[in-house]
Amino acid sequence: MKIAIDAMGGDKAPHPIVEGVVQAASLVREGTEIILVGQESVIRRELKSRFMPRELPISVVHASQVVGMDEAPAIAMRKKRDSSIMVAVDLLKRGQADAFVSAGNTGAVMAAALVELGRLKGVSRPAIASLFPTERDAVVVLDVGANASCKAVHLYQFGVMGATYASHILRRRRPKVGLLSIGEESSKGNEATVKAHQMLSHSPLNFVGNIEGRDILRGNVDVAVCDGFVGNVVLKFTESIDGLLTAQLRRYVMSRLRYRLGAHLLMPALLAFRRDLDYAEYGGVPLLGLNGVCIICHGGSSAKAIRKAIAVAQQMVKADVNSGILRQLQENGGMKK
Amino acid sequence: MKIAIDAMGGDKAPHPIVEGVVQAASLVREGTEIILVGQESVIRRELKSRFMPRELPISVVHASQVVGMDEAPAIAMRKKRDSSIMVAVDLLKRGQADAFVSAGNTGAVMAAALVELGRLKGVSRPAIASLFPTERDAVVVLDVGANASCKAVHLYQFGVMGATYASHILRRRRPKVGLLSIGEESSKGNEATVKAHQMLSHSPLNFVGNIEGRDILRGNVDVAVCDGFVGNVVLKFTESIDGLLTAQLRRYVMSRLRYRLGAHLLMPALLAFRRDLDYAEYGGVPLLGLNGVCIICHGGSSAKAIRKAIAVAQQMVKADVNSGILRQLQENGGMKK
Repeated sequence: MKIAIDAMGGDKAPHPIVEGVVQAASLVREGTEIILVGQESVIRRELKSRFMPRELPISVVHASQVVGMDEAPAIAMRKKRDSSIMVAVDLLKRGQADAFVSAGNTGAVMAAALVELGRLKGVSRPAIASLFPTERDAVVVLDVGANASCKAVHLYQFGVMGATYASHILRRRRPKVGLLSIGEESSKGNEATVKAHQMLSHSPLNFVGNIEGRDILRGNVDVAVCDGFVGNVVLKFTESIDGLLTAQLRRYVMSRLRYRLGAHLLMPALLAFRRDLDYAEYGGVPLLGLNGVCIICHGGSSAKAIRKAIAVAQQMVKADVNSGILRQLQENGGMKK
Repeated sequence: MKIAIDAMGGDKAPHPIVEGVVQAASLVREGTEIILVGQESVIRRELKSRFMPRELPISVVHASQVVGMDEAPAIAMRKKRDSSIMVAVDLLKRGQADAFVSAGNTGAVMAAALVELGRLKGVSRPAIASLFPTERDAVVVLDVGANASCKAVHLYQFGVMGATYASHILRRRRPKVGLLSIGEESSKGNEATVKAHQMLSHSPLNFVGNIEGRDILRGNVDVAVCDGFVGNVVLKFTESIDGLLTAQLRRYVMSRLRYRLGAHLLMPALLAFRRDLDYAEYGGVPLLGLNGVCIICHGGSSAKAIRKAIAVAQQMVKADVNSGILRQLQENGGMKK
């Protein structure tokens, strides 16, 4: 198995990327190779500065250009044909790599993957699937940002893709799929959700009906389906909960010794809560529905996050999630009414 | 000032409603009267069972019917003309009350208020404005559930209404208005937000541009504008954060004495965080844009929440928020392009 990784993508690239790759390569099984894609001299220098006890399965493929984190995806696609993103995606296209991992410009990664690799047969819109912590086990929420507005059929397909991910990667049996809306009744929501509710009800999926905002963290479902606008708002909202808790605790901790002591004793638990809410901790999130495996990481990813993202890519390839999605869509009828 | 309250609305009505009214009536200034609307015999019995040190400014208006919490609003409107909701709204319509407070069926309250009172001139869609806690001061988020899908002009008007609420009730000077989207650039979002961004930019409002999910709790703005689908999902999501924290802490607390002690010492701070996140604590939220003052409470409202909701109603009437909205819309041009 070969995993291509964008060495130049991310706020602090290539440092944490190369570090994460070295960590991952020390752990992978025989037969797995990690390909660092980017400016070769820069990457080689980074690699050389690291102590490696043995030769690791890491190779380098040169790409002369770098897409900036804020660059417009369409322009980057047109003007930077030799960017690390384009070269890496091209490796997948030519069968020289099985998966692509990037902490770079998400829009550019999505655009390149969509144009060069194309969609799985029957999929109208790829979606980003993120894991959220819950009171029980993690829940897959999708889409969290690839599609700002969605039709019913897109939401329905997100349900199929999310369920496949939950069964293949999270090992949930008959994963429960919920449709995020603003009331439990099937008539509640907007035009797209009301129609998607019907489609999901008539599918072989284990569809439990509409869920509400509060059901995500409670862990009532394995998969929560929503459009990328709502999903992205909730994902980023989650990022800021820790700040509110910290601000609240600080006010108390400053006031009395009792609280200072309490916070000190309880710190590991509070840090675990913070870690739970930090989606960078999950490493990378898959862009589902593509004709290839593509893992997107947070721009600020640490080496640890990169290492985890590489593990997610390996799992995706090994479990062959894409074949599962294809099969599900054929069985369910991709456009079932 | 006369405030009508739906004595029959809410999961445990009329008990907490009457209790909240008695508490509120003990505190109001001279000249304010609270009108309990509902089944007179039931209300009188509730009132009699309470010790009142002096005669309180509470009156009762009879309404023979009760709208169930899950009843379809359209059917309730048609079949229950003598419900506590309809009779109370009618008091406003006939000028016999200045505000209406209800913990009853939200859809039925909105429908009755919209049909009987009508909208303020220039307002296309009334919106529910909720307060969210932040690291600094509370932020007004609207809409949180009245409109499942919105056009740009609706979002723009939510900005005007939210800013008026923030200045008149929260006493913010030149309140900062943000548009909730999925990227800071004006081009990011869906069709409605992209167009609303333009409209807000060209208005006299203190518009700070797009904000993202994480900006709500950080308190970067005074007003966050969104459609009722997104707002409702985030509102209900917020409700469930406390459950996640509790579940996380419980796992630790069970494992070691150290954590048990820490949690005990820190409990008041943790409870304050929970209280912050519990929107029932804010009492009631206004339905803005109506030709009248209408405050909606959580179905499970406690007596304290009802007391607070009555206080919000008083503030709304006293500060004459509706005249402020009318003035703002006229100045800004209700449909400005």
